[in-house]
Amino acid sequence: MNIRVEKLRSKLSELSLDAILISQTENRRYLSGFTGSAGYLLISPDRAIVTTDFRYLEQAGLEAPDFQVIRITGEPPKWFPDLAATLGGQKIGFESTDISFAMYQALTQALAQSQAAKHLRLIPVQQVVEPIRAVKEESELKLMQQAAALSDAAFEHVAATIAPGVTEKQIAWALEKYLKENGSGPLPFDIIVGSGPNSALPHIRPGDRPVQEGEPIVIDVGARWKGYCSDLTRTIWLGKPDKKLTQVYDIVLAAQLTAMATMATSMTGEQADRLARTVIEQAGYGEAFGHSLGHGVGLVPHEFPRLGSGSTDVLANGMVLTDEPGIYITGWGGVRIEDMVVMENGRPKSLSHARKQS
Amino acid sequence: MNIRVEKLRSKLSELSLDAILISQTENRRYLSGFTGSAGYLLISPDRAIVTTDFRYLEQAGLEAPDFQVIRITGEPPKWFPDLAATLGGQKIGFESTDISFAMYQALTQALAQSQAAKHLRLIPVQQVVEPIRAVKEESELKLMQQAAALSDAAFEHVAATIAPGVTEKQIAWALEKYLKENGSGPLPFDIIVGSGPNSALPHIRPGDRPVQEGEPIVIDVGARWKGYCSDLTRTIWLGKPDKKLTQVYDIVLAAQLTAMATMATSMTGEQADRLARTVIEQAGYGEAFGHSLGHGVGLVPHEFPRLGSGSTDVLANGMVLTDEPGIYITGWGGVRIEDMVVMENGRPKSLSHARKQS
Repeated sequence: MNIRVEKLRSKLSELSLDAILISQTENRRYLSGFTGSAGYLLISPDRAIVTTDFRYLEQAGLEAPDFQVIRITGEPPKWFPDLAATLGGQKIGFESTDISFAMYQALTQALAQSQAAKHLRLIPVQQVVEPIRAVKEESELKLMQQAAALSDAAFEHVAATIAPGVTEKQIAWALEKYLKENGSGPLPFDIIVGSGPNSALPHIRPGDRPVQEGEPIVIDVGARWKGYCSDLTRTIWLGKPDKKLTQVYDIVLAAQLTAMATMATSMTGEQADRLARTVIEQAGYGEAFGHSLGHGVGLVPHEFPRLGSGSTDVLANGMVLTDEPGIYITGWGGVRIEDMVVMENGRPKSLSHARKQS
Repeated sequence: MNIRVEKLRSKLSELSLDAILISQTENRRYLSGFTGSAGYLLISPDRAIVTTDFRYLEQAGLEAPDFQVIRITGEPPKWFPDLAATLGGQKIGFESTDISFAMYQALTQALAQSQAAKHLRLIPVQQVVEPIRAVKEESELKLMQQAAALSDAAFEHVAATIAPGVTEKQIAWALEKYLKENGSGPLPFDIIVGSGPNSALPHIRPGDRPVQEGEPIVIDVGARWKGYCSDLTRTIWLGKPDKKLTQVYDIVLAAQLTAMATMATSMTGEQADRLARTVIEQAGYGEAFGHSLGHGVGLVPHEFPRLGSGSTDVLANGMVLTDEPGIYITGWGGVRIEDMVVMENGRPKSLSHARKQS
């Protein structure tokens, strides 16, 4: 018995759905175990089907033993009506943030034209699997700890080699090489290395700029371990930091540690974000903290819940989250500090142990 | 004057649209030059706008000088109605294969609730920018040649080092390292290395299997050069090939070279696919060639046109395409041979020069 599928089946019943089409890649993997790059799940109270094309048939059979594997050819409008008609019921949910408008139109049309399936209705649903996936099982937490340890080690290893004149790109590549040579899967996101004024761009791509003494160097790096991602940011400097850097760094660190010390389960994502934001606002840099405090991490580097303004997502034990406030000043630079935490006994416990400069 | 935007404007008029919302990342980059990971374009006959959040404002201004940069906060339903209302007209196209059903619903609702924008209608359109992007300009072809030369060099370099006992993963990592250390951007796709029976899975992930003498080793690798992708597959072996390998290899090579010699502009993607498929079918392996002959390549590794069954896409000069037939036999292995070509004076010219074993 697949407990993840059973949790989803409870949701189907809450949502009055007779079945659900799962199209989102990581949701498919999470529920079935099938890691191929193409395929769908169709899950009803008594059936669990994975559909994929000829390229992945063998793999799907091996990886998803709890599922019936059905070979498909072509896009869902070709095979979905006949298959869905065999499930019984009428209302089939689909992941409306993943299915494109064009695919929805084509599916609707295909159902209408099918004698066997014209009674079926497609019901858009959102965040059905994601909140299940957000709460990690023990086995998942072990993998996430390993992912976090790997990005910690990569950072520590490479940070020790950074000297004036080394370029952002060289730093990023040294990190990537360390990660890959020490077992990381495909990196969860492009490594960010921004130095001096470049660090004012939170998502800067590493360039040919040589790093210099005294300026901020923001490094944002993640590993992937058996599918699970980590996410770590450190801001460092060479030599003596300029005065502004010391000041800004201490504010960001205070905000980051405040969130770490006061975040708790049952808070909303907006409330968690506020913990750090208040510190930065009161220090006079509210406008310069232009992104959210953090996000869930798992099979996807940015996943449910969202820790930011307007988020009603509720924090719960077992969730793995980032705590990553920042201050960005155009023309000067930026500071961001990010740890990945797991909510445990109501409180965050850090999974990131890379040294913070001070 | 931006010639790409002008081509799009001609299409707007053909489609009776007053403006178009561009959400697809590479289409945004192609039209505007803006390479950030978040943003939209809004293009009307007399305006060209790029919207992005605070993280990318500086970058958008630098990279998209022909565009007006507008700062946005939040998702399109928050800012789109007011901005779209300033454009004049009524019918605004959107990329329906890129916009999710949920986003379409939220946008429609936001328009209906906006006093200024409730007269606007969202019109789903598909493959508006992609066929423009498919025909490469001279400057793009230069970059694609460089991307192809880089994957050729990586293959040649690493192929020379493969010996019995080296694992698939080690081969893939050696390729990746060569590519990155020689200037490749983020790899366009995960490198495929499949040996022996693993090579029967066309999209196998490299594993810990050591390669052995006599068996097929399929290597599918691409580089990215200033955004542009290459795509190359070679099947090699160590020592003396087993008899089946020699036979299957020669059939695939014949099919690949036949497509190369007979493909021509004005053919449909289905007709091009047929050229190679006929050779494989007549050799008795039709069932074992389970994928399409090829696809366009550019800013996206798989893009318009599609060279496969049912494709009515028409080949034209300036298109960069792959020619990649294959034969896959469960339990034994597979062979795929892929060159990237540019259509020039009506015929394909190969951009791939890596040695084919024979």
